[in-house]
Amino acid sequence: MLIIGERINSTRKSIDRAVRAKDADFIREEALNQVNAGAHMLDVNCGTLDAQEEPAVMEWLVQTVQEIAGVPLCIDSPNYKALAAGLSVHRGKAMINSISGETERYKKVLPLVKEYGASVVALCMDDRGIPANKNQALEVGVKLVNDLLDAGVPVDDIYFDPLVRSVATNPETVVETLRLMEEMASRFSGLHFVSGLSNVSFGLPERRHLNRAYVVLSMASGLDAVIVDPLDSTLMALVYATEALLNKDRFCMQYIRCYHQGKLKA
Amino acid sequence: MLIIGERINSTRKSIDRAVRAKDADFIREEALNQVNAGAHMLDVNCGTLDAQEEPAVMEWLVQTVQEIAGVPLCIDSPNYKALAAGLSVHRGKAMINSISGETERYKKVLPLVKEYGASVVALCMDDRGIPANKNQALEVGVKLVNDLLDAGVPVDDIYFDPLVRSVATNPETVVETLRLMEEMASRFSGLHFVSGLSNVSFGLPERRHLNRAYVVLSMASGLDAVIVDPLDSTLMALVYATEALLNKDRFCMQYIRCYHQGKLKA
Repeated sequence: MLIIGERINSTRKSIDRAVRAKDADFIREEALNQVNAGAHMLDVNCGTLDAQEEPAVMEWLVQTVQEIAGVPLCIDSPNYKALAAGLSVHRGKAMINSISGETERYKKVLPLVKEYGASVVALCMDDRGIPANKNQALEVGVKLVNDLLDAGVPVDDIYFDPLVRSVATNPETVVETLRLMEEMASRFSGLHFVSGLSNVSFGLPERRHLNRAYVVLSMASGLDAVIVDPLDSTLMALVYATEALLNKDRFCMQYIRCYHQGKLKA
Repeated sequence: MLIIGERINSTRKSIDRAVRAKDADFIREEALNQVNAGAHMLDVNCGTLDAQEEPAVMEWLVQTVQEIAGVPLCIDSPNYKALAAGLSVHRGKAMINSISGETERYKKVLPLVKEYGASVVALCMDDRGIPANKNQALEVGVKLVNDLLDAGVPVDDIYFDPLVRSVATNPETVVETLRLMEEMASRFSGLHFVSGLSNVSFGLPERRHLNRAYVVLSMASGLDAVIVDPLDSTLMALVYATEALLNKDRFCMQYIRCYHQGKLKA
């Protein structure tokens, strides 16, 4: 399971303040804490900035985080200039967050994926928005992944995001998302699946329980990357437990190692 | 989801002491606490007693719990005389825990199921023990359920327990158990599925994470009854969350009600 730390995102007030003030120490501490907690990759997002400022700040953010964290980054912006700026200074293989079937976004982001040999989050949506049902989602997803493959992007670099909605307003969304992932997996051998956790619980109280259950359910249907707060130790323990149960943790070695590292105390 | 409280079991030292001392107050408190925490049914087990004593104590236990708890009981013993004694004083529709494909147990327990119109936990095993692999388990399970149906037990009264093993020694057990439940569900419409949670994590540290993940995974594959400690509020919140995600909680009403009752604080 690829754990992508979500905390360096300027929608969080403390991060917004830090990126505006170029507070490198604060950013580095957020980076280190996430890696120490088990993140394999860190998402970096400064999308609350003005579109003109964002590229330069993204460049600074990528360099600041990579100086200390020693992990690859998931460069996160709807602004392709910010993506390009971040990629230009990134060391190692980056992930781009994100491409989609939207004509404009696809056209702008695909060249970056190719130029930098990056992996990419592929959102299951197109110019019509987020698909209204599973059949439409399957059609949009198949087209998007086929387009990426046809463009020469290796399947191993594609992280398909099924874009789960809120269960409060879409009671069938989770069941449909699980089936969508299973059908996409059966069509595209080696395709990866990624998800954030917050949409599914939007509008409901005590959201962490829903987010936790969603990650376990999704892992059973093929999710192998997740954008989360790795400091949520209850969630992380549940992820390690689920990998052990799904026979993706040989001899439960990761689970036992996490135990010895004190990571299962939650 | 049918929540069966597991706490009144004499393998717990405090319960063993209470049943030997006929400490009705202690038993009643354990019963009430579980019902207040969300149990719909209570398992009662005094199997640490001598086989001669067990029937009379089971009778006392059933009466003592039902006086206060107002819920049906899951009468739990390998000793059919204890089952019979408990059933003879049980008010309402009881559950028998358990029958199996073992010749002797099947022969002794089936008449009790029929006589009392009880529902029954059907363990997926026979005279050869617990099946060694999924194909054998499917064969054993299909025969057991068919035998019960042929004997006139309604499918709605059968709670099939796939008998998950420890993932520490059987890394494929969970994946096989999930597939077994799905295949049994497709063959027997209306069949229920029940499981305890402790076997799966046997031999591993910090077992609660594995138990929690297992219940979520199992619910996605059809589990609709579980024998648990309802005082484990983190687990219970996860069960409510999973029901909401799997669209088995209309308009998330149960989840929201639990929130208002303060049951999602864990």
